[in-house]
Amino acid sequence: MQVISSIQAIKQSIKALIKENRSTIGFVPTMGALHEGHLSLVRQAKKENDTVVVSIFVNPLQFGKHEDFTRYPRTFGNDCNLLSQEGVDIVFNPSATEMYPDGFCTSVIPESLEDKLCGKSRPGHFRGVAVAVLKFFNLIQPDIAYFGQKDFQQTVVIKRTVSDLNVGVTIKVLPTIRDQHGLALSSRNAYLSETEKTDALCLYTALTRAKTLANMGTTDTGEILREMEKIITRCTSATIDYIAIVNPETLETVPKVQNGDVVALAVRMGKTRLIDNVTLILMIAFSCLIL
Amino acid sequence: MQVISSIQAIKQSIKALIKENRSTIGFVPTMGALHEGHLSLVRQAKKENDTVVVSIFVNPLQFGKHEDFTRYPRTFGNDCNLLSQEGVDIVFNPSATEMYPDGFCTSVIPESLEDKLCGKSRPGHFRGVAVAVLKFFNLIQPDIAYFGQKDFQQTVVIKRTVSDLNVGVTIKVLPTIRDQHGLALSSRNAYLSETEKTDALCLYTALTRAKTLANMGTTDTGEILREMEKIITRCTSATIDYIAIVNPETLETVPKVQNGDVVALAVRMGKTRLIDNVTLILMIAFSCLIL
Repeated sequence: MQVISSIQAIKQSIKALIKENRSTIGFVPTMGALHEGHLSLVRQAKKENDTVVVSIFVNPLQFGKHEDFTRYPRTFGNDCNLLSQEGVDIVFNPSATEMYPDGFCTSVIPESLEDKLCGKSRPGHFRGVAVAVLKFFNLIQPDIAYFGQKDFQQTVVIKRTVSDLNVGVTIKVLPTIRDQHGLALSSRNAYLSETEKTDALCLYTALTRAKTLANMGTTDTGEILREMEKIITRCTSATIDYIAIVNPETLETVPKVQNGDVVALAVRMGKTRLIDNVTLILMIAFSCLIL
Repeated sequence: MQVISSIQAIKQSIKALIKENRSTIGFVPTMGALHEGHLSLVRQAKKENDTVVVSIFVNPLQFGKHEDFTRYPRTFGNDCNLLSQEGVDIVFNPSATEMYPDGFCTSVIPESLEDKLCGKSRPGHFRGVAVAVLKFFNLIQPDIAYFGQKDFQQTVVIKRTVSDLNVGVTIKVLPTIRDQHGLALSSRNAYLSETEKTDALCLYTALTRAKTLANMGTTDTGEILREMEKIITRCTSATIDYIAIVNPETLETVPKVQNGDVVALAVRMGKTRLIDNVTLILMIAFSCLIL
């Protein structure tokens, strides 16, 4: 496994790859502190491509001033061991100055998407994501890039940026990986105390309740949200940032649930902000059957 | 010569080109109404590449509300004849809805460059340029793209965007083509009356004076600008938008001229806004010789 940190070197490696054997490249962008969620993306990339590139870059542009940039978990040695075991070909871990040298001044802004959901409490986050991912796509020239459904709004932003700018990369979004109790895996779970970790299960309980309600034919957004709020507010260490049911492309909130709409939430457990989401499936055929 | 207007078709053509013969692609983006300035870019592209693609797209995003989008000269038939004679392989002329379909919401913003020089009186212009050119680069995947020095700030913005986003395209900037009297060729010259056209020569006279002053060792920006203003204000139909001497990468105005700085100007001749520029060369060796 090659570990590359300079832009010049990654360009050369990719150029050689493309020239030599015209292999397909699968790409998994990460901020490191890898868990089974990331590894599920890597494994899928391995299955579908000749070469797999993983980036590890804690991107300063996607952190707000008072966010956890400096204390974000960094476990580079362990990450490399995990990726090597998975048969990854190249790890790209540029420094911030390599990515954003003096004079850097280009913003990539997903205008109508960046102020919704997480964007409200994380201004500038999604433009930070968009510019870094676009740079990686241009450098690594993947055929397919892999993202986890857990970061739902991020996947919507990336798909929109790629489509709007005609970037020749296929975006695949893979299911959220959860622990045995249902908590969505996240590098930020490392911040949680044992109590907070147990309490955090209310997120999945609330999402599952929403899914069941929609499954059973409830389309009234207000009704579903009220049920979810009840479940989460019962948990004392939880503070709701938002819960919303939205169109999966525009992120506009919907008054009435349609098939494929997404219920997304952000909740603070103590000082740790967690996000999660599920897609709602209206079992119309099923409910007709019952009737 | 293929004339292509759909994104799907241009993607297929480029894919086939790259797959079949690994030829190099030269690209000249234009808004049509072609003149010898554009053709000089096309000829250079022909010399240096196996395949030449020219886009003709009057990009609505780079026009302000009260600018000349609707009356901008459109001479598509004639343009195609000219390009065919030059041996161009592909003309790409997408519609605005093909380029910016419903839901399009991505901005590409050259933050520290867009509010300078022309940006002051054309807010939004350079982000409009940046996003269209980036889309063309992603669709056409050129090895080299060609721009004219006449649109100096545009070339600075494009070079910065390409560098910041790690786009794998080489940008070549070719000299401004002028008529026999020195007027820089521009599609907008078609708007000028005969009197305005004659008066417009004061732009080149002023720029030449600046060049001579710098050549002779004058480095005081104020002195050069005053001389230029004198020349232009003498011409009654001319209204100065700006004259500035700037660093050719940052576009910051400089108090003292350094080798390679650019003197750029925008002047209204009646209702028509013209731009022009020259690079200043300090002939230090030459002036030492005289001393």
